[in-house]
Amino acid sequence: MGEFSLIERITRAAARGGAAQASPAVVVGTGDDAAVLRLPRGHDVVVSTDALVEGVHFRWLTQNPRTVGQRALLVALSDLAAMGVRPLGCTLALAAPSSLELSQALGLARGVGAVAARARCPLVGGNLTRARVTSLTVTVLGSAPPGRFLSRSTARAGDGIFVTGELGVAALALAGSERRGRRLRHLPPLRLAAGLALTRLPGRGACIDLSDGLLADLGHLLQASGAGAEVWVPSVPLRPGFAQACKRLRLAPLRTALAAGEDYELLFTLRPGGLGPRALSRRLGVRVTQIGRVTRRAGLHLAGGPKGFSVGASALGFEHF
Amino acid sequence: MGEFSLIERITRAAARGGAAQASPAVVVGTGDDAAVLRLPRGHDVVVSTDALVEGVHFRWLTQNPRTVGQRALLVALSDLAAMGVRPLGCTLALAAPSSLELSQALGLARGVGAVAARARCPLVGGNLTRARVTSLTVTVLGSAPPGRFLSRSTARAGDGIFVTGELGVAALALAGSERRGRRLRHLPPLRLAAGLALTRLPGRGACIDLSDGLLADLGHLLQASGAGAEVWVPSVPLRPGFAQACKRLRLAPLRTALAAGEDYELLFTLRPGGLGPRALSRRLGVRVTQIGRVTRRAGLHLAGGPKGFSVGASALGFEHF
Repeated sequence: MGEFSLIERITRAAARGGAAQASPAVVVGTGDDAAVLRLPRGHDVVVSTDALVEGVHFRWLTQNPRTVGQRALLVALSDLAAMGVRPLGCTLALAAPSSLELSQALGLARGVGAVAARARCPLVGGNLTRARVTSLTVTVLGSAPPGRFLSRSTARAGDGIFVTGELGVAALALAGSERRGRRLRHLPPLRLAAGLALTRLPGRGACIDLSDGLLADLGHLLQASGAGAEVWVPSVPLRPGFAQACKRLRLAPLRTALAAGEDYELLFTLRPGGLGPRALSRRLGVRVTQIGRVTRRAGLHLAGGPKGFSVGASALGFEHF
Repeated sequence: MGEFSLIERITRAAARGGAAQASPAVVVGTGDDAAVLRLPRGHDVVVSTDALVEGVHFRWLTQNPRTVGQRALLVALSDLAAMGVRPLGCTLALAAPSSLELSQALGLARGVGAVAARARCPLVGGNLTRARVTSLTVTVLGSAPPGRFLSRSTARAGDGIFVTGELGVAALALAGSERRGRRLRHLPPLRLAAGLALTRLPGRGACIDLSDGLLADLGHLLQASGAGAEVWVPSVPLRPGFAQACKRLRLAPLRTALAAGEDYELLFTLRPGGLGPRALSRRLGVRVTQIGRVTRRAGLHLAGGPKGFSVGASALGFEHF
């Protein structure tokens, strides 16, 4: 099949997944040299880009194409969630070896399309190229009224530190699928509504999404904000039976909770004296837990851990380069 | 070097190239979860994405990192030029094996930065990931007043067909560098000003950039517009001594002129009775040549070629998939 008819089939597959649902924002969609999108009056445009590479971020042995396509758009959208921004549209640059079967390419497209429909983030353009391994680079565009977005750099000493959902979930799911030789079905959550709700909270501080692990991403937020933090280890939200599940899968529970990546929950700070976790959970539509507070003193202090130890910024988290 | 400090160094290298020149459009640049850009009041946002993959679009043996970085942004910007749209900013998703040397990564970034400065298209975000081969996926954003953009689909029977510059230049340069075992220095032209000038012309028709070759891209434009064309082969603009240069490099001159890709010139149509090529050249700031006209009858007729033959849509150009 030629390049151009393959592009057409991939675009149609994504559209059947819902990617091209009628959106008043799309002036020109796929099929021209570029897409044209209309922003709500006076809004700024927000852009972020993310890539999934075969052999690094996914393996065909353990993931089906639809799941990979879903994940590619979900992780890109997580950056818009962390900015508290509404999606406008996305593009997909697909690189694939000639050995990639048509059904796999269409599966990837359907996965992207399914998430595009759910997030109201239509696929408006893309690129297809040959490469030795498959990769999906997704760029998401969003829109926000001027100044109405979250940032990493606006935490202040005294802020409470909160997370959505539960941590270590993605690492457990991955280890479980590897152990049992089953397909990985776990997908990152979509926290767009929670991020948007955060922009409307009085006393909002900083926000980041948890892609590299709690300690690494908290480190990024603190570095950008010029502050330190204490993290109350026993407060970190975990699912029931977390430690036992970790042990069964030979994962270190503390490291898995604090440093494993890919959870894509939101980590954010709020000025003191605002809403409590219960009211926050209602406003954000997802469980919210306070896990510490921002300090004037640089560095991270882990309080209530097995030994109560401090870690330097360089020891934090997981770097995959 | 860790991922995060590498990202910092790459961002700084691109900035030294000029990528982060103060732009009033950049509200939030690199370093947060997403970038925030301000559009001129009432403008739409335009987006396009393009990728260069090692072994497919470039080889380290024949291209230095700076040239590859320049090319990556130039080919993406070519899509904005074809829409007649002013650039706003760009993102770079870099995938690289651990064997990629720091100097190569910084060279790529400096190349992107140099073009970003020239095109006033600051690098506002990106992504860095490990992969088995190097690839650069660039997404460019532009802005345009509502309706003030060019499209592939607006050619009409009777329109004149024009191209900027000269064709076959990229193919000659590539063959020349391979023949002589020299580095490839040729870079795609930047036709942003020409595209922008086209949007202001009365009687403008359709436009596309020449990435896949004259016949293939004219085919795309005609398909989108639901029309056919006759191309006056002897009118296709070539540099002096083109046929001899092709023969020295064992390229078929006709095929090189009509079907070789990567020239990134603009192909556009204009309603009849408008400006002639000389006045057009002045308005667009680049040589403009009429090479045919749009016909009601589907298909492409090559007039004045060696035998004067017609080609069907399926036989056109070069598909790299």
